[in-house]
Amino acid sequence: MLKITATFIDEITGDIPHQNWLADDWDKDFAAMKAIGIDSVTMIRCGHGRWITHPSKVLEKEVNAYTPVTDLTKLFLDLAEKHGMKFYFGNYNGGFHVRGNYRKEIDINKAVCEEAWERYGSHPAFAGWYLTQEVGRLQWNIIEVFHELGKFCKELSGGLPTAISPYIEGIQLYDPFRTGVNAGKSVTLPDFEREWNEIMAGITGCVDTISFQDGGCDYSELEDFLTVACYAGKKHGITINTNVEAFDRDMPIRFLPIKWDKMLLKLRAAEKAGVAGATMFEFSHFMSPNSSYFQAHGLNRCYQHYLAGGFETSENQ
Amino acid sequence: MLKITATFIDEITGDIPHQNWLADDWDKDFAAMKAIGIDSVTMIRCGHGRWITHPSKVLEKEVNAYTPVTDLTKLFLDLAEKHGMKFYFGNYNGGFHVRGNYRKEIDINKAVCEEAWERYGSHPAFAGWYLTQEVGRLQWNIIEVFHELGKFCKELSGGLPTAISPYIEGIQLYDPFRTGVNAGKSVTLPDFEREWNEIMAGITGCVDTISFQDGGCDYSELEDFLTVACYAGKKHGITINTNVEAFDRDMPIRFLPIKWDKMLLKLRAAEKAGVAGATMFEFSHFMSPNSSYFQAHGLNRCYQHYLAGGFETSENQ
Amino acid sequence: MLKITATFIDEITGDIPHQNWLADDWDKDFAAMKAIGIDSVTMIRCGHGRWITHPSKVLEKEVNAYTPVTDLTKLFLDLAEKHGMKFYFGNYNGGFHVRGNYRKEIDINKAVCEEAWERYGSHPAFAGWYLTQEVGRLQWNIIEVFHELGKFCKELSGGLPTAISPYIEGIQLYDPFRTGVNAGKSVTLPDFEREWNEIMAGITGCVDTISFQDGGCDYSELEDFLTVACYAGKKHGITINTNVEAFDRDMPIRFLPIKWDKMLLKLRAAEKAGVAGATMFEFSHFMSPNSSYFQAHGLNRCYQHYLAGGFETSENQ
Repeated sequence: MLKITATFIDEITGDIPHQNWLADDWDKDFAAMKAIGIDSVTMIRCGHGRWITHPSKVLEKEVNAYTPVTDLTKLFLDLAEKHGMKFYFGNYNGGFHVRGNYRKEIDINKAVCEEAWERYGSHPAFAGWYLTQEVGRLQWNIIEVFHELGKFCKELSGGLPTAISPYIEGIQLYDPFRTGVNAGKSVTLPDFEREWNEIMAGITGCVDTISFQDGGCDYSELEDFLTVACYAGKKHGITINTNVEAFDRDMPIRFLPIKWDKMLLKLRAAEKAGVAGATMFEFSHFMSPNSSYFQAHGLNRCYQHYLAGGFETSENQ
Repeated sequence: MLKITATFIDEITGDIPHQNWLADDWDKDFAAMKAIGIDSVTMIRCGHGRWITHPSKVLEKEVNAYTPVTDLTKLFLDLAEKHGMKFYFGNYNGGFHVRGNYRKEIDINKAVCEEAWERYGSHPAFAGWYLTQEVGRLQWNIIEVFHELGKFCKELSGGLPTAISPYIEGIQLYDPFRTGVNAGKSVTLPDFEREWNEIMAGITGCVDTISFQDGGCDYSELEDFLTVACYAGKKHGITINTNVEAFDRDMPIRFLPIKWDKMLLKLRAAEKAGVAGATMFEFSHFMSPNSSYFQAHGLNRCYQHYLAGGFETSENQ
Repeated sequence: MLKITATFIDEITGDIPHQNWLADDWDKDFAAMKAIGIDSVTMIRCGHGRWITHPSKVLEKEVNAYTPVTDLTKLFLDLAEKHGMKFYFGNYNGGFHVRGNYRKEIDINKAVCEEAWERYGSHPAFAGWYLTQEVGRLQWNIIEVFHELGKFCKELSGGLPTAISPYIEGIQLYDPFRTGVNAGKSVTLPDFEREWNEIMAGITGCVDTISFQDGGCDYSELEDFLTVACYAGKKHGITINTNVEAFDRDMPIRFLPIKWDKMLLKLRAAEKAGVAGATMFEFSHFMSPNSSYFQAHGLNRCYQHYLAGGFETSENQ
């Protein structure tokens, strides 16, 4: 049975509404994570556009960032320590590489990571790095970005582990309602295999773990994509995880918690593919008993029922 | 005062996010239905695409269906029995008739219904059939579909009743925000009358009840459409109900619980039109005190206030 | 520290789903408003299309209005009185001026306001008028509309104050996700200054207060827009307030409560610009501890933390 042992935290975001939690709310939520076996949190990014998680001279200068209300980086580090969890630091998403300037994305992030390391590197919960640049295909000079930033972060921190979380650029992204319009843009399995072999070859030694987002392809294709990914990972010495998306992509409201049946299908597909582990996106909105979305409370109970073996036979409840 | 005595259950769905309820949650919700006078539940479909409500060799073979986590058909039958309610079985929605192959829609469904009857037909709560193929106009060989499937289900089950729930293809479907763009596609009252007379003539004896969805036309038109439907129903020996949609079609979030004032307007229009009864779509998301949407809790209290006569005068609270 | 002392109530609406509250729910919510320092409520409109807040012979005749289930105008007046708050009456939004017939918008509203004044003018909580016609630019004969209706309402009521709440027609309205498509349609600061000086010059003496909606421009531009507005207000003898939008415009779900950090940024920008006060849109859905959206409960706690000085230093929690 594949268990989820890590989650992202998505506080600087472009598409998930905020729950407006204060420190005590977060404390309660870290406890809820721990209660179902999550022992690692990854702050998905320390900034996006002008919004940032902690005061940063670099980002105030480079992108005119707004001074944050709360130092979320410190808050999450402290809570991770308090609850005996590991904290992974997500770097800055400037999107410059997407707009043709990958050099700027790298340079800003070197300064951002250096500043963050100086400020938080000695924190007992600081366990590693997450490179927040998301990608589906071999594009945007992504090998250079991951190679250089992964290497830099490792050298900076005495070799702390680094991770990325790409998506599978499949039909759920292009045509979630199966209208047929953009269906042809989906990546094929052979292209996925070829491109990710090339990417992995280029970032080996710099990126330790790749957690593939599990919501990009059709439910029936996930096992194949992850199998290919695991095979490539083994070849290039990179750990392959699944990143369980706990929200529904194929509903008119974008986004509410996923139907448990779909999540279970994905967990089982990832297990069959042989992934090393499972992280999720993300606990606090979509599977927390504290979520503003009550469908998440249900999902939490379903997941606990799963952990207790409650869905092992096909017809029971 | 028109009272709602039945509800659909929409668990295999394309547009309503799931609440992730386990058996005890459903038990609680059946009790809540009963508490406001609902004594019948219709499982709206036993499958859609690859998602199904109970293990089905037919659908695993024909559409490569995913084995369901829980046998929802059995769960709902058991809960209906426990709470003294009737259960109606919704057939499979393959959509083949919409894509030009009505024969396949019929054939698959004969096998699906046969299999379901064998498996669940002896259950004390099994009270009849619901033909899930939704339609607004005379199209898609819908007469053949309803005629043949209705007849088949009746013969299979010793004459158990059959029902359908079409929509009124009006302005709320084509132009809910009244931008004017697709307003002209709405069905006119004379066309509605002519087409439904023809459909009813073709399915009489095979379909016992038609519950028209009440949310397709403008609020001010509903009484007229339902009056015409009731007149045609009387002529062809078919019971006409209203199917009260308890969600808002004219809000940017698709879909949240409807404003009570709108629902009351529709209930009163249906009553004036002379419908035989009222079912709803659907209790658990949109009018349940257990719903993840708290606006539904309010709607439940408003509806109870209505049952108690609280909105009988125009200015009271 | 800029404090919010007023809120709109948005019960006849085109884009905010209803919570289905009965009188006791509203009573509880007025108490919650009072608890955080709100002492004025503005019923944003007494009608829109065929939906109205109280029985109105005028609107039944003119626009075939539906008789309302509850007399909301009376309910809100009574609750305002009970909780020691002021009530401002929003007039009818017919949108005729937008469609080229501003004369009709004025004439209907004179009759509507006369009828309302006759019915509710003697109520101890009736404190003034709100002209519900929203506008961003100098268009739609808006000067005539505001001038004539403001004057009429003042004369009718012995000089009770009048207010409007325009929007800043900026990039958050045209391009909230920064795709670039409609970005060029945003109003520039010089155009804003010129047009609002002209509007203010035309409505001085008829409109006492302008509360600019704070969500139309980019967060970084708000201080400038409001500074210009305050300067113009001073020149023309009109009070300038900010109208704090407590919902997020830049999320895929339209609309859920805003992230507190964004709201704080807007409050601080308005304070620096020198506004006279702050109203909000609106408490009951987006910042109430009774809201159906639990993100609003969080926002309420954040705002109380702010009132208590909890965000005064940049790094505390």
